[in-house]
Amino acid sequence: MSTDNTSVVLRAVEDIAFEPRPVPEVGPTEVLVEVKKTGICGSDVHYLVHGRIGDFVVNSPMVLGHESSGIVSKGRFRRPRKIKGFTNKSRPVGSKVKHLKVGTRVALEPGATCRVCDDCKAGRYELCPDIVFAATPPYDGTLGRYYKLPADLAYPLPDHLTYEDGAMMEPLSVGVHSVYNIGQIRANQRVAVFGAGPVGLLCMAVAKACGASRVIAVDIVQARLDFAKGYAATDVFAPPKMQEGETKIAYSRRASAELSAALGVEDRGPNAIDLVIEATGAEVCIQMAIFLAKIGGTVVQVGMGSAEAQIPVTLALVKELALKGSFRYPGDYPAAIALVASGKLDLKPLVTHRFAFKDAIKAFDVNRKGKSDDGKGVIKAIISGPDVDTESL
Amino acid sequence: MSTDNTSVVLRAVEDIAFEPRPVPEVGPTEVLVEVKKTGICGSDVHYLVHGRIGDFVVNSPMVLGHESSGIVSKGRFRRPRKIKGFTNKSRPVGSKVKHLKVGTRVALEPGATCRVCDDCKAGRYELCPDIVFAATPPYDGTLGRYYKLPADLAYPLPDHLTYEDGAMMEPLSVGVHSVYNIGQIRANQRVAVFGAGPVGLLCMAVAKACGASRVIAVDIVQARLDFAKGYAATDVFAPPKMQEGETKIAYSRRASAELSAALGVEDRGPNAIDLVIEATGAEVCIQMAIFLAKIGGTVVQVGMGSAEAQIPVTLALVKELALKGSFRYPGDYPAAIALVASGKLDLKPLVTHRFAFKDAIKAFDVNRKGKSDDGKGVIKAIISGPDVDTESL
Amino acid sequence: MSTDNTSVVLRAVEDIAFEPRPVPEVGPTEVLVEVKKTGICGSDVHYLVHGRIGDFVVNSPMVLGHESSGIVSKGRFRRPRKIKGFTNKSRPVGSKVKHLKVGTRVALEPGATCRVCDDCKAGRYELCPDIVFAATPPYDGTLGRYYKLPADLAYPLPDHLTYEDGAMMEPLSVGVHSVYNIGQIRANQRVAVFGAGPVGLLCMAVAKACGASRVIAVDIVQARLDFAKGYAATDVFAPPKMQEGETKIAYSRRASAELSAALGVEDRGPNAIDLVIEATGAEVCIQMAIFLAKIGGTVVQVGMGSAEAQIPVTLALVKELALKGSFRYPGDYPAAIALVASGKLDLKPLVTHRFAFKDAIKAFDVNRKGKSDDGKGVIKAIISGPDVDTESL
Amino acid sequence: MSTDNTSVVLRAVEDIAFEPRPVPEVGPTEVLVEVKKTGICGSDVHYLVHGRIGDFVVNSPMVLGHESSGIVSKGRFRRPRKIKGFTNKSRPVGSKVKHLKVGTRVALEPGATCRVCDDCKAGRYELCPDIVFAATPPYDGTLGRYYKLPADLAYPLPDHLTYEDGAMMEPLSVGVHSVYNIGQIRANQRVAVFGAGPVGLLCMAVAKACGASRVIAVDIVQARLDFAKGYAATDVFAPPKMQEGETKIAYSRRASAELSAALGVEDRGPNAIDLVIEATGAEVCIQMAIFLAKIGGTVVQVGMGSAEAQIPVTLALVKELALKGSFRYPGDYPAAIALVASGKLDLKPLVTHRFAFKDAIKAFDVNRKGKSDDGKGVIKAIISGPDVDTESL
Repeated sequence: MSTDNTSVVLRAVEDIAFEPRPVPEVGPTEVLVEVKKTGICGSDVHYLVHGRIGDFVVNSPMVLGHESSGIVSKGRFRRPRKIKGFTNKSRPVGSKVKHLKVGTRVALEPGATCRVCDDCKAGRYELCPDIVFAATPPYDGTLGRYYKLPADLAYPLPDHLTYEDGAMMEPLSVGVHSVYNIGQIRANQRVAVFGAGPVGLLCMAVAKACGASRVIAVDIVQARLDFAKGYAATDVFAPPKMQEGETKIAYSRRASAELSAALGVEDRGPNAIDLVIEATGAEVCIQMAIFLAKIGGTVVQVGMGSAEAQIPVTLALVKELALKGSFRYPGDYPAAIALVASGKLDLKPLVTHRFAFKDAIKAFDVNRKGKSDDGKGVIKAIISGPDVDTESL
Repeated sequence: MSTDNTSVVLRAVEDIAFEPRPVPEVGPTEVLVEVKKTGICGSDVHYLVHGRIGDFVVNSPMVLGHESSGIVSKGRFRRPRKIKGFTNKSRPVGSKVKHLKVGTRVALEPGATCRVCDDCKAGRYELCPDIVFAATPPYDGTLGRYYKLPADLAYPLPDHLTYEDGAMMEPLSVGVHSVYNIGQIRANQRVAVFGAGPVGLLCMAVAKACGASRVIAVDIVQARLDFAKGYAATDVFAPPKMQEGETKIAYSRRASAELSAALGVEDRGPNAIDLVIEATGAEVCIQMAIFLAKIGGTVVQVGMGSAEAQIPVTLALVKELALKGSFRYPGDYPAAIALVASGKLDLKPLVTHRFAFKDAIKAFDVNRKGKSDDGKGVIKAIISGPDVDTESL
Repeated sequence: MSTDNTSVVLRAVEDIAFEPRPVPEVGPTEVLVEVKKTGICGSDVHYLVHGRIGDFVVNSPMVLGHESSGIVSKGRFRRPRKIKGFTNKSRPVGSKVKHLKVGTRVALEPGATCRVCDDCKAGRYELCPDIVFAATPPYDGTLGRYYKLPADLAYPLPDHLTYEDGAMMEPLSVGVHSVYNIGQIRANQRVAVFGAGPVGLLCMAVAKACGASRVIAVDIVQARLDFAKGYAATDVFAPPKMQEGETKIAYSRRASAELSAALGVEDRGPNAIDLVIEATGAEVCIQMAIFLAKIGGTVVQVGMGSAEAQIPVTLALVKELALKGSFRYPGDYPAAIALVASGKLDLKPLVTHRFAFKDAIKAFDVNRKGKSDDGKGVIKAIISGPDVDTESL
Repeated sequence: MSTDNTSVVLRAVEDIAFEPRPVPEVGPTEVLVEVKKTGICGSDVHYLVHGRIGDFVVNSPMVLGHESSGIVSKGRFRRPRKIKGFTNKSRPVGSKVKHLKVGTRVALEPGATCRVCDDCKAGRYELCPDIVFAATPPYDGTLGRYYKLPADLAYPLPDHLTYEDGAMMEPLSVGVHSVYNIGQIRANQRVAVFGAGPVGLLCMAVAKACGASRVIAVDIVQARLDFAKGYAATDVFAPPKMQEGETKIAYSRRASAELSAALGVEDRGPNAIDLVIEATGAEVCIQMAIFLAKIGGTVVQVGMGSAEAQIPVTLALVKELALKGSFRYPGDYPAAIALVASGKLDLKPLVTHRFAFKDAIKAFDVNRKGKSDDGKGVIKAIISGPDVDTESL
């Protein structure tokens, strides 16, 4: 096995390179994983292009990637001569770890939390102020040969799930958290999802898997809607164009009304939308979500976009809506894995592009463009680990 | 007893007058109440000045008033000669009514609902589309001699509560619904309330009565804060003035930070605000509410103001806030009465002005100005029923 | 159309007969339904055999039946000569009813509540002390030609649902209430159901329709388990026989352990039972339910059996179980209808026996025996209305 | 400072002795506390008398005590000659601990959990299968000079709280968990508590502090009721004696009816008991709790007594009760401390007996008898740490 830990490093804006990194040492409650598959997330691309997301600024080189699966690594490591300071003599599985052994195939949850703050102890560890999240400055990501993490964040994959499935558990957990835990979806409900990108599509898939009787996809790109219809949506809607001189609020009210008319949506009763998932972050979509939700319904905001949005606040009040933010995920991996393992949810259609590790930089290029040279639109591009044949799942 | 039903009628914008009205007939599940005390609500004044609130337009003369208490009326009525069409031969207590009898002192819940829609049957009857709400067009209000309502909406007052207490149950129920039922307040929590008008003050009082360990009042009028401090707030804060060229969002962020610094408020832990009640409807207050609420906290919007507001939506997302609308109240009267009956909450300090029925028009004038000729600021002005001596409680 | 209202009347213990009854008059919020299909419930048989259930005693003749569907009746009625006291001159649809018209096919919810008590207004109307429940003394049931009820309790059936589906909505609502509303089932959960009779089977079907990943049926009759396996259960288990000298608790502990061993059930984690539905009322099943539920899990008691049961209370404490009673259903018909309408749940396999109205007494006989002369076990027997051909659905 | 760690050790049934123990070494996330005050719990006495509680068996000598407060210890320790194997060279505050420093006064939460199982991560760490709980075999307790624990389980005490308050946070957290978190108490509710021992009294105090409008204490010992009345109960009730030949169920039904009649308790409405806390574990109390709870109410079982209890299960069903187990506490210390710090809850009246460390064995004697030689009944006896003057708080 390899003893170097070549990684895909963001050195500065628009500057990615392969760099050798030390193989991390493993503490008693940790595990070392050989990374097999890593999905590219919008945030990786955002750091590449802008060097920051909000207050998170890439001030020093950072390994990218946080949507990964892998296998518990096989052996001890000795100090390789070329890597300064490398002193790893640890075993790959910490001494206190019970549920993993060498060779266990796992999905990686990329946010390690403090375990001792009030939020961690109350089961809302996504809110932990000391979270160490992969590929969020200043913490390195997973896009290398090896990644070390707390063992309880390495979730064994059932045999019939692939490494690609495993890599997709990260964005799927975003969907599970939004739809299942924050949105508290229940069987028979009607759901609308704004945005048919990876997160939106996964929210639709979770809604469908949880027994939603109707899943309405809303997006401005027809090709995305076509995909959504074939994947998990029961209905799709492309909002009209904004008219000249129309305010955003007026537009959103009109677009929502057109959706309602086209799809027979009402503001209460059996044709009303119980739950709206806003997965775009676009101001007009946030507005439409509020117009569209049923009286007494719920809107979950999971898409991050502009910092501020104008909302029809009096309407939200008289409809007694609950508007809820959804950020990352606490404890959602087991549910995500179970949904896929039981066949209720299929991740495979979402993986549109695959790259060898050596082509990682090209993968980011394709992802930025949104389509490959053959014109195929990217939903999810996955980069294999350095020791994996691209086509292997 | 009187057989006419003189009422305070809004005939058109800026046109109130006393008018005779028929005494309503009582059906088997209804009760006729002689109105004893009626509080003036901001909405009454708004209809007087603007003739409408949002989509509710006063197109024909409407009796004002919906914050009332009274006594179950004493007798049958015969047709008085002067009132055309009056045919009341009914008893004052419907044949199927068990819990009331002539002479029972009651607080009146002014919204009668259909009882059969999904919302009514699910216990959220404030959302009933067919609600008949007093003094909301086209329905007459309570500011007359008699008012008829479904008997279950007439709540007996414990002996030691006054008719003024009874009239105040309506705005108090708004506070109970916002803080207790929508806000789900629990003992030990820290609460901030924006707006120290009647509803805001009642929200503070409910928070205090429910065991809040800290109740922070925020208002721009120092006299209101002084009152709040003496009433139910543990801390008060007057936001700074907006600076020239400052955006609302920038201002709100700064004002929230100043509040936090001044009062030692943090974004998590034992000095964080669990629950923010926004009772102004002002855009900057809605913004401040989001900045101020703790990570994982709740903001309840009960104040109605501008139709739209710009909110820091990404911040709300990463803090995983729940923003909830609160509209009227379903089933909150018993809790409201119990809080006052047990002595946990005192309504008396809020009644600043009292008027005889014959001075009702003057009462509206004083209320509009916000203070009486002697300079005393109005919190709540109460108009006695036509048969009540003003000073009588 | 017929103007008499021949009904199946329980006159005394073991004494059923057809009797003419007046056609009920319809008030402004009511509707008159021609009954098309009525299922026989265990409670009907219990009244027949014992004349009482607990405190409910049949002291005067009572029409049986409460699981019914029908069609909104067609016409006015005039006084028929032969029926003393009949004065019906009402229309079949009350003047205030909007959602029904003559000819609408409906499922009947058989419990009319007061609408004004605290429980009704809080959305828990199954607890209303003044409920008028069909075929619960002293109130007549639905097994006649006509039945009058509050119009909001007559739920329109989608066109592709049959009258038999409609009649089954009553027991299905028991399942929906137990599993969905009291049990708060969510997708991915593991559920065990004790008892594979009609209610138990419907609970399994609801669990499956709501996305349960495992539905374990427990019953002592292998034929019932076989049916359950083919219907909605993923696993079945027949508890062992009690050994001589074994206490019930010891037996239940052992039986639960055998189930766990046989099916790989653990007390926590992904192989643990989140939700146990106890639909037998048998003491040993209640005990097993507590042994079987996961740590932190929920047990719902819906089966009524012996008045008392010995439970392992310290175990329930250290497991922090929630044991919840489930009684009838409030507002569950729409969800029940939706589950069937969407195809998530199929009621047809449960209807094993069908009888013409004239054979109603024979139907009760077969139901008591539990099987028909051809040896076919009864799950649900349905009696057609007097004007319906048996085979018609 | 002392370098030995003299502890009170249960060596076998009825055999307590002082023994030297090593001073524990502190890991990076731990803290070493000098114990100042320790309350005696019923479980300590139970182990002393019986050597076991259920499946927990004292197979080797075990330090007693788990209700403790103390101060973060002052210094390093060197190996004392007399204690074999002692190698402590650690600092008293682990390197990663931020919120504590030498001299911080703290309350100790005695159950350290794994932090990585599903229950821990979901915020229900009281259910962790790997919990290390002080003075629960095989784990040593706190009744020595020093105790080491995870630093986040050492909660700083506000300056105005005493070490005795700190020691009482453990049983108070049991009350907070039962009444506040499991019972979900809300302002205005009516609560009944069975058992006026330490846990019962603390449950009453929590109920009162959370705004319960009525707190009914039930106990068979009048002196306990008298104390409860002076402490936190608004009403008290001593159940009648069981009559000869009366079954437990019949007795419980009668006793509950007598309580209801005496105190004006009904089964629904404003005189109904929303929440019953059963803090005795006695079968008849469990039964009475079910008879007494309002329709739709909640019973929390926190008292551990006989392993099994016969309950009126059909009644629990038709009342749709929720019966919930309450075991230990997760994350309840901050709320417990806040309730005392804010003055809502006073722990001082409960401390009836105080002992010097050297008199610890006598303290257990007095506790077993339930009263001291002067006849004063024990509610809570507290043993000072070895370096503390008894009278010091």
